Amino acid sequence: MADLQTKVIELARRRGIFWPSYEIYGGVAGLYDIGPIGVRIKNKIVDLWRKHFIKDNSDFVVEIDTPALTPYKVLEASGHVDNFTDPVVECNSCHNVYRADHLVEEIAKVTTEGLPPSELDKIIREKGIKCPKCGGELGEVRLFNLLFETRIGPYSTNKAFLRPETAQGMFTSFKRVYEAFRQKLPIGIAQIGKVGRNEISPRQGLIRMREFTIMEVEFFFDPNSDVEPPLDRLYDLEINILRGDDKARGEEKYTKYKFSEIVNEKIVINKWMAYWMGIASNFVNSLGISSFYFEEKLPHERAHYSKQTFDQIVVIDNVKVEISGHAYRSDYDLSRHSAYSGQDLSIFKKFDTPKIVKKKTLILNKDLVTKEGRDFSKTIMEIINTKTVEEIERMILNKEKVLGKDIDMYVKIVEREEKISGERVIPHVIEPSFGVERCLYLTLLNSYMEKDGRIILSLPKRLSPYDIAIFPLLEKDELIKKAREIYDSLKERYDIIFDDSGSIGKRYARVDEIGVPYSITVDPMTLTDNTVTIRDRDSWQQIRVNITDLMNVLDRLFKGEDFNKLGKLVSNNE
Amino acid sequence: MADLQTKVIELARRRGIFWPSYEIYGGVAGLYDIGPIGVRIKNKIVDLWRKHFIKDNSDFVVEIDTPALTPYKVLEASGHVDNFTDPVVECNSCHNVYRADHLVEEIAKVTTEGLPPSELDKIIREKGIKCPKCGGELGEVRLFNLLFETRIGPYSTNKAFLRPETAQGMFTSFKRVYEAFRQKLPIGIAQIGKVGRNEISPRQGLIRMREFTIMEVEFFFDPNSDVEPPLDRLYDLEINILRGDDKARGEEKYTKYKFSEIVNEKIVINKWMAYWMGIASNFVNSLGISSFYFEEKLPHERAHYSKQTFDQIVVIDNVKVEISGHAYRSDYDLSRHSAYSGQDLSIFKKFDTPKIVKKKTLILNKDLVTKEGRDFSKTIMEIINTKTVEEIERMILNKEKVLGKDIDMYVKIVEREEKISGERVIPHVIEPSFGVERCLYLTLLNSYMEKDGRIILSLPKRLSPYDIAIFPLLEKDELIKKAREIYDSLKERYDIIFDDSGSIGKRYARVDEIGVPYSITVDPMTLTDNTVTIRDRDSWQQIRVNITDLMNVLDRLFKGEDFNKLGKLVSNNE
Repeated sequence: MADLQTKVIELARRRGIFWPSYEIYGGVAGLYDIGPIGVRIKNKIVDLWRKHFIKDNSDFVVEIDTPALTPYKVLEASGHVDNFTDPVVECNSCHNVYRADHLVEEIAKVTTEGLPPSELDKIIREKGIKCPKCGGELGEVRLFNLLFETRIGPYSTNKAFLRPETAQGMFTSFKRVYEAFRQKLPIGIAQIGKVGRNEISPRQGLIRMREFTIMEVEFFFDPNSDVEPPLDRLYDLEINILRGDDKARGEEKYTKYKFSEIVNEKIVINKWMAYWMGIASNFVNSLGISSFYFEEKLPHERAHYSKQTFDQIVVIDNVKVEISGHAYRSDYDLSRHSAYSGQDLSIFKKFDTPKIVKKKTLILNKDLVTKEGRDFSKTIMEIINTKTVEEIERMILNKEKVLGKDIDMYVKIVEREEKISGERVIPHVIEPSFGVERCLYLTLLNSYMEKDGRIILSLPKRLSPYDIAIFPLLEKDELIKKAREIYDSLKERYDIIFDDSGSIGKRYARVDEIGVPYSITVDPMTLTDNTVTIRDRDSWQQIRVNITDLMNVLDRLFKGEDFNKLGKLVSNNE
Repeated sequence: MADLQTKVIELARRRGIFWPSYEIYGGVAGLYDIGPIGVRIKNKIVDLWRKHFIKDNSDFVVEIDTPALTPYKVLEASGHVDNFTDPVVECNSCHNVYRADHLVEEIAKVTTEGLPPSELDKIIREKGIKCPKCGGELGEVRLFNLLFETRIGPYSTNKAFLRPETAQGMFTSFKRVYEAFRQKLPIGIAQIGKVGRNEISPRQGLIRMREFTIMEVEFFFDPNSDVEPPLDRLYDLEINILRGDDKARGEEKYTKYKFSEIVNEKIVINKWMAYWMGIASNFVNSLGISSFYFEEKLPHERAHYSKQTFDQIVVIDNVKVEISGHAYRSDYDLSRHSAYSGQDLSIFKKFDTPKIVKKKTLILNKDLVTKEGRDFSKTIMEIINTKTVEEIERMILNKEKVLGKDIDMYVKIVEREEKISGERVIPHVIEPSFGVERCLYLTLLNSYMEKDGRIILSLPKRLSPYDIAIFPLLEKDELIKKAREIYDSLKERYDIIFDDSGSIGKRYARVDEIGVPYSITVDPMTLTDNTVTIRDRDSWQQIRVNITDLMNVLDRLFKGEDFNKLGKLVSNNE
């Protein structure tokens, strides 16, 4: 893939899809500008995600928008202040800093997953690993926190961070959203927004960035509720999964499962989690990407509070990239924020019909107790205040005495019925989480094609930066005027790029490279018989259609009808 | 407006439009969550802005997306490191920090616009201003930089900031975008993105926030080009302007001008700037806001490099809020970044036809010079190397001698014609800049109405969070089923909220409060005659229409046809 990546990065820079930020100042690793063509594709990917995750589930999913600036306390509660770290090691001579685990893996050729700094340190000493840059002695391995730190307001004590994920915004506002959403579970709170992670060694391209966009849903549900996801939407689906059990046995290849198997055989332990993985499959498919699978994380690979976690892995050119993560986070998030904020984040779950429960109650004969005098009264009250009803019942059954007297003279235990209308529940959370720029990048890698030494970005039509290009063949006023008329007649319905300069070959090459599926060319024949050519990006074939049929033909093309059947095929002029 | 603001803030919190972020942790001033209803309105405002500023100008405007994280050097070049400051003063006793200018204005009742810290300090001493909180002595007034500071990577020297505006992303990537945009001017580079400003005293509501979303265009043009904006689109427009000259004379009221006057009489000094102000007028009008004007900034109120600046001021309930800024920034930005980055950010402007220029050239008779010997040769070469052609020509005209010899024996000046194909130009910049959350907030304030003690959010239809609500009148299966069928038949075309619980009155009240223009109710009569009621948000009137006509009637309603004429008026049941 290195070669493919290099080609796509070069194309992206040349055609305004993306490029390193602040290039004129030498650039900053891990920061990228998304250019004019890239933004169009990116916005369409975001819209598509919104459709799959929000609009198609609008009965129970809403979108919010919360700040990237996050107070210290919030990320302390989430665990990020303590745990969002990478091991680093600094050269004592040139003071270059390295990701310690990456360095050890590269040089000592050992896997370092899950090793603490002390172990990494040991390997560095044992293997005599030196600074790759200057050969100098390496210092001690320490943990570096990846949060971007700042301060809010004029007081230096008000530490804050850029959020490393959007999720905490959903957790801290859960109560408010729940209230506005008419106090109903389940509720998915979605967010699309920028996050920052101060990576030590960002990778080239849009895979590991220091600032990027997350689209994720925190899906809150009652684990004891029998509300079912609309699974019937997904029963045609087949999903590739590499299960944890198989992985633990050394298996590296996924297995194809029917969606019903995944649910019924509890391969995914929670139905809602299976549902969101199915939606994620459909979404990734809609990016034109068909080669992917879900890999279950082993217990030591996932967070301690997670009951099950899957990565969705896209395979392009034999290289694997995680496009999304799916975690069953249990009640960890709301419990932690309850504890750290002191606010009750449980919800009151009303029963359909009130439950009648039997409850043991203690009845005290106060008059009799008082008559026995102060000492007795004090002793018996202490027993009542410090013991449970069950313990006192046991004392009565055992005929225990208090200051020589039988307790059951003064205290009786009766069973009463009580009506309970509901109970408090801390919702559980399932989190499907995507990186927008990764989706963009993988879509580009997946769409990149070469044909006769020329580049075609064979994007799915719904993701193309423009639907249509319109070209007057020559720089002549009549042709330009006619082409403009066509442009004006189509612009409300389609995104169109108009270009009237340069050779037609160069213009075709340009729209091929940015993935515009169809080009309409106005040529001298147009002026005599009112026809234009439509050129197909992928086949380079051209058909000639009458302008009066143009809108209809385009609508049918975008519905997926066969290009060759919609007009008279003409020889192409490339 | 305080009262109106209080009401809107309360409504926004209750209905999930917006609320203070991190409430469970006590909140952070200046940070707000945009809730489920707010995001829908906000996204529609952003789309509307995109239509007005980008899509309708797609021949010369493109959108990009650059990081919020900004290296130190970039904001040093822009001037923010030095100048993006507010004066603050700290109490020596309780250490509370105040905006010094605000404090002086409030307590000493003097205007402080443009006063340096030393002057503010003087007033504090003279007036004996003390800490409003504890009465303690105030320290010295100092400047506080409003940039949120952080560090990129593991080195503590790599200072960076959160961007306070998106503009620097357009300036630093201008060259790259220009290349990808086929090397043509003018080009507008638009961006919509989050920014951070570490305000000392954020205001309540969405007016002065510490993190918010900017939508702005940096419009690059050649000041000597005769490319004209499409002004004909705007000639019907009338615009209210409070001119700088009038302001300087003490005038506080704007004057209404025809758009043509503004251009022809150079009330706005640049046509492109006038064009963007016209587009901004149309955009703000489309938010339903009609009461606004443009106020020209006086020289001391605008940046020194700006040739002219206007604020677009919205007036609601007699309170004025700036909704956008319009600055003619000259070539300041690209010149500064050229100087700080060492990169040439000028563009090569090709002439339509190459220009023939006459150029004086020096012709040296080398053979003759050599013959005169080394000393002479050295002397004459020194003259040629250190003097301009014009200076040497003057020496010849003055018959000056070199080492006793006439120069014109050895050197001749001839005039030759030279063909020049173009010249280098640093583009000028015009910047129309909007705050998204301010647009949202002002739209809400402007739409808030009360009727019979109930609240109606009378949003323009195009900004409503949902187009339609669908209600089964009663919680009966047949009604719910029928309502679901209608929902399914309309959901591809409209954004719909479905609600089947609670009294119909409460459901109507709820959709009135979030601004849904039409509610469709399925009632027992529906099951007998296949009709439903459509209720109008603002008038509360209801018409009854057949379900087969429903789509048609809704399409006509959303096109603006008269509600009463589209169905049989029925008595309403509220």
